[in-house]
Amino acid sequence: MVQVNENYLKLKAGYLFPEISKRVKIFTESNVCKDIIKLGIGDVTEPLPKACRDAMSKALNEMGSIEGFRGYGPEQGYLWLREKISENDFISRGCQILPEEIFVSDGSKCDSSNILDILGNDNSIAVTDPVYPVYVDSNVMTGRTGESLQNGTYDGLTYLAINQNNNFLPEIPKNKVDIIYLCFPNNPTGATITKNELRKWVDYATKNKSLILFDAAYEAFIQEEEIPHSIYEIEGAKDCAIEFRSFSKNAGFTGVRCAYTVIPKNLSGLSPKNEKVDLWSLWNRRQSTKFNGVSYIVQRGAEAVYSPQGKKEVQELINFYMKNAKIMKNKLQTAGFKVYGGDNAPYIWIKVPDQMTSWDFFDYLLEKARVVGTPGSGFGLSGEGYFRLSAFNSRNNVINAMERIINI
Amino acid sequence: MVQVNENYLKLKAGYLFPEISKRVKIFTESNVCKDIIKLGIGDVTEPLPKACRDAMSKALNEMGSIEGFRGYGPEQGYLWLREKISENDFISRGCQILPEEIFVSDGSKCDSSNILDILGNDNSIAVTDPVYPVYVDSNVMTGRTGESLQNGTYDGLTYLAINQNNNFLPEIPKNKVDIIYLCFPNNPTGATITKNELRKWVDYATKNKSLILFDAAYEAFIQEEEIPHSIYEIEGAKDCAIEFRSFSKNAGFTGVRCAYTVIPKNLSGLSPKNEKVDLWSLWNRRQSTKFNGVSYIVQRGAEAVYSPQGKKEVQELINFYMKNAKIMKNKLQTAGFKVYGGDNAPYIWIKVPDQMTSWDFFDYLLEKARVVGTPGSGFGLSGEGYFRLSAFNSRNNVINAMERIINI
Repeated sequence: MVQVNENYLKLKAGYLFPEISKRVKIFTESNVCKDIIKLGIGDVTEPLPKACRDAMSKALNEMGSIEGFRGYGPEQGYLWLREKISENDFISRGCQILPEEIFVSDGSKCDSSNILDILGNDNSIAVTDPVYPVYVDSNVMTGRTGESLQNGTYDGLTYLAINQNNNFLPEIPKNKVDIIYLCFPNNPTGATITKNELRKWVDYATKNKSLILFDAAYEAFIQEEEIPHSIYEIEGAKDCAIEFRSFSKNAGFTGVRCAYTVIPKNLSGLSPKNEKVDLWSLWNRRQSTKFNGVSYIVQRGAEAVYSPQGKKEVQELINFYMKNAKIMKNKLQTAGFKVYGGDNAPYIWIKVPDQMTSWDFFDYLLEKARVVGTPGSGFGLSGEGYFRLSAFNSRNNVINAMERIINI
Repeated sequence: MVQVNENYLKLKAGYLFPEISKRVKIFTESNVCKDIIKLGIGDVTEPLPKACRDAMSKALNEMGSIEGFRGYGPEQGYLWLREKISENDFISRGCQILPEEIFVSDGSKCDSSNILDILGNDNSIAVTDPVYPVYVDSNVMTGRTGESLQNGTYDGLTYLAINQNNNFLPEIPKNKVDIIYLCFPNNPTGATITKNELRKWVDYATKNKSLILFDAAYEAFIQEEEIPHSIYEIEGAKDCAIEFRSFSKNAGFTGVRCAYTVIPKNLSGLSPKNEKVDLWSLWNRRQSTKFNGVSYIVQRGAEAVYSPQGKKEVQELINFYMKNAKIMKNKLQTAGFKVYGGDNAPYIWIKVPDQMTSWDFFDYLLEKARVVGTPGSGFGLSGEGYFRLSAFNSRNNVINAMERIINI
């Protein structure tokens, strides 16, 4: 009889955001209340930039003629998009990332979980705690952990706590780990990492021949000059790091779907026979076999992000959300909350007051202020006692939400 | 040090279509010749239906306003699309497939390979031979086969030969297999299966508690009334089959990217403890964790496939390509070729003449007629001696290609 993948049975209750939706739904159905403000899931709210819409509209028109019609595109993405990415996101910052090292995809969630396909099952894995749940769950699903423990962690994973005591910077692990997930600007804490701190990780990975999976989905929100946007700003990173990027948060593509992953050509892993195998070829084979590329129309939209008009509009979106973050941080601090993040990231990380748990605070804010946030414990054991608010919303909603929280 | 997934090292030379592109590129570069006609890859050529373009254009406009903007959608697809699919593709044909049993995705290539994520690694696997290479390669990549053998097959897989001797219908395996891939109308042979023959497979799967992975990507091309469009037309299939469907070939979405997978609610597999586990929940968890849904704009385009205007345009596309297939089959038969398929599928399956190999015939057609097809051996050992031509092209190209082949 057909057997299921038993690793799925180790997974704990539903993925964080579906669980939040469920609680909100139950609350809404049992209360006549329509004015809930959602600052939970990190989903953008402002219109798609006109530059992107115009480009997509043009592409859509092309699809209506024999001459302009495009069928299957390259699984790796169209070269014109990869060239724009290389030039604008890397070469311009001094990182020698070439177009062929860029793989366009439909989302960083897919990429950051699918990347495990090409890596051995016996690698030891480190994640920060709290962490984007996808990193952990995708490792559980592929059998890279043991069972879930009483405290909510998984056996076999190395958790690197990030909290106010270490300024939300993970300590270099004492044991040797093969794969390390790092996300900066950080989701969920909104923390950033300096070049000096990031260099320590690159040095660690180089020394131990580890692989860093660097998630830079929020790099566009960086305001301070000296904070690195890409791990490739650190020398040596091309030999030890894969980077994930997305158009979701900078250009508002969460519903449009486009992202990319950088796999440098000289990055390698080991075969069981101790032979070097380059990861670029494996990922290229994976994508050619299991993926059929991103919609032509969507790729034209992503290309427009790099046009002068697109850059201007994206900057306006970033400014808008970061102004939200500033308002939130100020209001909450004035009201006496301990608040982190929000300076170079669209997330505010609140220390939950009065010894409440994160989920207590979730229910409390939902009931008393009709504001939805994300419980820190949903991101891991060390997230307990914290709470994430997202700056992705309209100015009005942000101001109203803050007023409501302050006036509970 | 980071280890790679050693199973990738078992994979034989590049995936079929990249290999074809390479040979065509080499030929083009060494010959001043610009009029190659490509009937290789099964990629559509006619414009995207106006109904779809209009719907996508409207969706794109919505994305330009605060009120109309859509961020993350449901990972499973929007309900309005799933309802249309349920009603038009299943309920209307007497199959009780409900909207929540339908998972919208960006492609059948992804779905038919990702489905292995939720299934145990020790399942025994059967594929037809020849077969769509993705089924085999995704099994190799996930360690469900042994090494590749001298003859090009993989150890540990059960190959069910389909050829002119069995009328391109696989025989029920004598051994017990847990998972069987079936694709009808068939890629690459263009063969179809009757309800009676398909019922034998459902009976086999029911008896052995096996799982059928049924690929119906080409169902829209069926011309004969009695041929089943869905495996769910067979009683009992909801307890033993997953079905893959795509908008790629019927509505010309190869460059737009939309497909769906049906996982009936009562379908189950076994855990190592011999407990029943429903596959719907596992796939739902997989998609929620590792996927972020299909572009809102694209889903609106797919919805329009089911509008009166959309249905009319899709029917015209099908008629157009099937007329191509008819022309091809007639011309080739008249010229003395043994030809299969093409009656209910957009593929012509030629018996290669004069004891040539499939790749010989590929090079021969490329050099002598400047026509690109797909070598049957690229689809498996039993595909040797056959050759696939796709009916996806303009009328002119099809007629010219046939003239050139006939006049070699």
